[in-house]
Amino acid sequence: MMKEKFLFTAAILFCLLLLNKVNAQIPEGAKPASTNIRANDYPYILPDLRVAFKINAPNAGKVQIDLSRMYDMQKDEKGNWTVTTDPQVPGFHYYSLVIDGVKVSDPASETFYGTGRMSSAIDIPETGVDFYAIKDVPHGDIRSKSYFSKTTGTWRNVNIYTPPGYDSYTKKSYPVLYIQHGGGEDERGWAVQGKTNIILDNLIAEGKARPMIVVIPNGNVSKPGSSAVGYTEEAMTNFKEEIFENVIPFIEKNYRAKKGAANRAISGLSMGGGQAFYTGLRNPDAFAYVGVFSSGIFGGIARQPGAPEFDAEKAIPGILTKAESFNKKLKLFYISVGEQDPRIDYTKKMIETFRSNGLKVEFNSFPGGHEWQVWRKSLHDFAQKLFR
Amino acid sequence: MMKEKFLFTAAILFCLLLLNKVNAQIPEGAKPASTNIRANDYPYILPDLRVAFKINAPNAGKVQIDLSRMYDMQKDEKGNWTVTTDPQVPGFHYYSLVIDGVKVSDPASETFYGTGRMSSAIDIPETGVDFYAIKDVPHGDIRSKSYFSKTTGTWRNVNIYTPPGYDSYTKKSYPVLYIQHGGGEDERGWAVQGKTNIILDNLIAEGKARPMIVVIPNGNVSKPGSSAVGYTEEAMTNFKEEIFENVIPFIEKNYRAKKGAANRAISGLSMGGGQAFYTGLRNPDAFAYVGVFSSGIFGGIARQPGAPEFDAEKAIPGILTKAESFNKKLKLFYISVGEQDPRIDYTKKMIETFRSNGLKVEFNSFPGGHEWQVWRKSLHDFAQKLFR
Repeated sequence: MMKEKFLFTAAILFCLLLLNKVNAQIPEGAKPASTNIRANDYPYILPDLRVAFKINAPNAGKVQIDLSRMYDMQKDEKGNWTVTTDPQVPGFHYYSLVIDGVKVSDPASETFYGTGRMSSAIDIPETGVDFYAIKDVPHGDIRSKSYFSKTTGTWRNVNIYTPPGYDSYTKKSYPVLYIQHGGGEDERGWAVQGKTNIILDNLIAEGKARPMIVVIPNGNVSKPGSSAVGYTEEAMTNFKEEIFENVIPFIEKNYRAKKGAANRAISGLSMGGGQAFYTGLRNPDAFAYVGVFSSGIFGGIARQPGAPEFDAEKAIPGILTKAESFNKKLKLFYISVGEQDPRIDYTKKMIETFRSNGLKVEFNSFPGGHEWQVWRKSLHDFAQKLFR
Repeated sequence: MMKEKFLFTAAILFCLLLLNKVNAQIPEGAKPASTNIRANDYPYILPDLRVAFKINAPNAGKVQIDLSRMYDMQKDEKGNWTVTTDPQVPGFHYYSLVIDGVKVSDPASETFYGTGRMSSAIDIPETGVDFYAIKDVPHGDIRSKSYFSKTTGTWRNVNIYTPPGYDSYTKKSYPVLYIQHGGGEDERGWAVQGKTNIILDNLIAEGKARPMIVVIPNGNVSKPGSSAVGYTEEAMTNFKEEIFENVIPFIEKNYRAKKGAANRAISGLSMGGGQAFYTGLRNPDAFAYVGVFSSGIFGGIARQPGAPEFDAEKAIPGILTKAESFNKKLKLFYISVGEQDPRIDYTKKMIETFRSNGLKVEFNSFPGGHEWQVWRKSLHDFAQKLFR
């Protein structure tokens, strides 16, 4: 025993170095963020939701934290830079460490594909809100799977939530929700940041959502030689082709997915909300449920002073002039947005226009900005209304 | 159409910004690394396997790339820092961007949990080697699943490869390989860096491996209040408890796993090789196949000048004195190591000792150091020998 202990001392030291542990005393009541790399004390969250950050950088001239605004860190004599932010709003926030002007991810935190790179993020807990906390209920699986896309000419990854019981009840088939990430994100968004599996597991356990498959594709679809992105007609057409010619056939061939519009929903956030809007409402014979979360499609980020209004009738022929035909085909057209998201004003205005032309729209808003906490709540709300 | 194009111009610009695209002309024959964030030209790999890096950092005093050795980058008048490295050996290499002395991940690359943080990495292709390249063969799934561990008192994630056909042949059950990551890594290692699913898909398609489930747990197992890591007796005991009392029961309850030693293999790399060695060889009634890849257990990183030799007989009572009883129970005891890994010398010496005491050991080595390319090849080799 003694011999082994002696032998392994260097190994332990090596592992502790690897763990990069900061042996700080953190204040009473403070908690290391759930988004930290294991065993890191920093960043930690104070009871009033201020967040303390720390990094060792003796040779840097300026170190900052960009968490919704820029915070200058202060350096001590050991080269440790620290800062405590203002109280943060609950939810999942991408943030950056800024070293002499370069935005990078913080080695202390997990990284998440968002803002077009692997970004640090911090998940600030919301008191009394536990619908996205893992519980002792039956759990589904998140599966990662590759398929070949004829549209992009490449192998692509798709994440698929299969509900609890999928492996046991092998004769049962399930309705399918197709759900899209936002700009600068990919198919990891809803699987990781969105906590889709936990939200659905909890809803299904409570009997509040029907067991369903949730398909989480990569919505960045460029044809070879092209680089169409965002809300362009070309990008929307590429996305539609990817969904109809590649994703849906792959899912319906390989998983026990019910077919037909009544068993298919499409939704998404921000850019993905635009994709759901175009792909869903232009094809109500394929999707009876459409969810648009926090989308700029109705005016949004593209709105310039003096720019023309979003022309819904042009985007979706008949949506204003033949609303009744949409009402007949769609079981649900759902829109949500964050109450602090600048998109809320024109979104509400658009909904008024829809409704004044006779189109049925369900609308909900949640506290928060253009952020994952709003999208988690949107999914939690939307999923309860599906396949009824 | 014109109106929509006008409306969406800012959205497109925004998305391009998000993509953070560097519109460089890259040299003929050079290829952006497969590990880049999509649409990034840098880092790119030249035909002779030199790698070019670039980052914009006008206010930094010193910028370096740490890719097996430190490379100083050169700054141009626009604040872009660039460097081209020496030719790299093929395989998957963790690397860091070093800004004024702070090691961070490179915003241009994907990040991977390794070296105790989310680290950048680059995958240098190996000519003529495609066993870990995705092919048009039937694909299994990588599933991510949570289970509650009574050992750690927490919910933990485990990744599970189910082979092609698992969802179709619902009466069929499969043998199981339990495979462990190294120090500073977690259950993402074999699922992402290791490309376990692709390696197995290809082997199964060629008829070179039997269809099997591969379970990829998190081997960092600390009991509440303790922080045992590495090769200590306590850490090894925790790991064994986690496997026997939590992971195996969870897998055998929830997946169609064949039971009994003849249907179970355990293997791992580096620290995980030590875990496989202890857990497997101390319990040959539970595992008939044991694989130890690049482990420091036989002397390794803990070896200090004058330190005592690794005492195999003490670690695994009977392994030298009653080798025949191990030979009877084990269908395979497999050891591998990289030919440039400093662990190779004492590993070979240990194997000589095993063999001179009558213990059957299969040994293989592969070009490369203490790196994932060796571990991919080890899995590729080991998996073909299992469950025969």
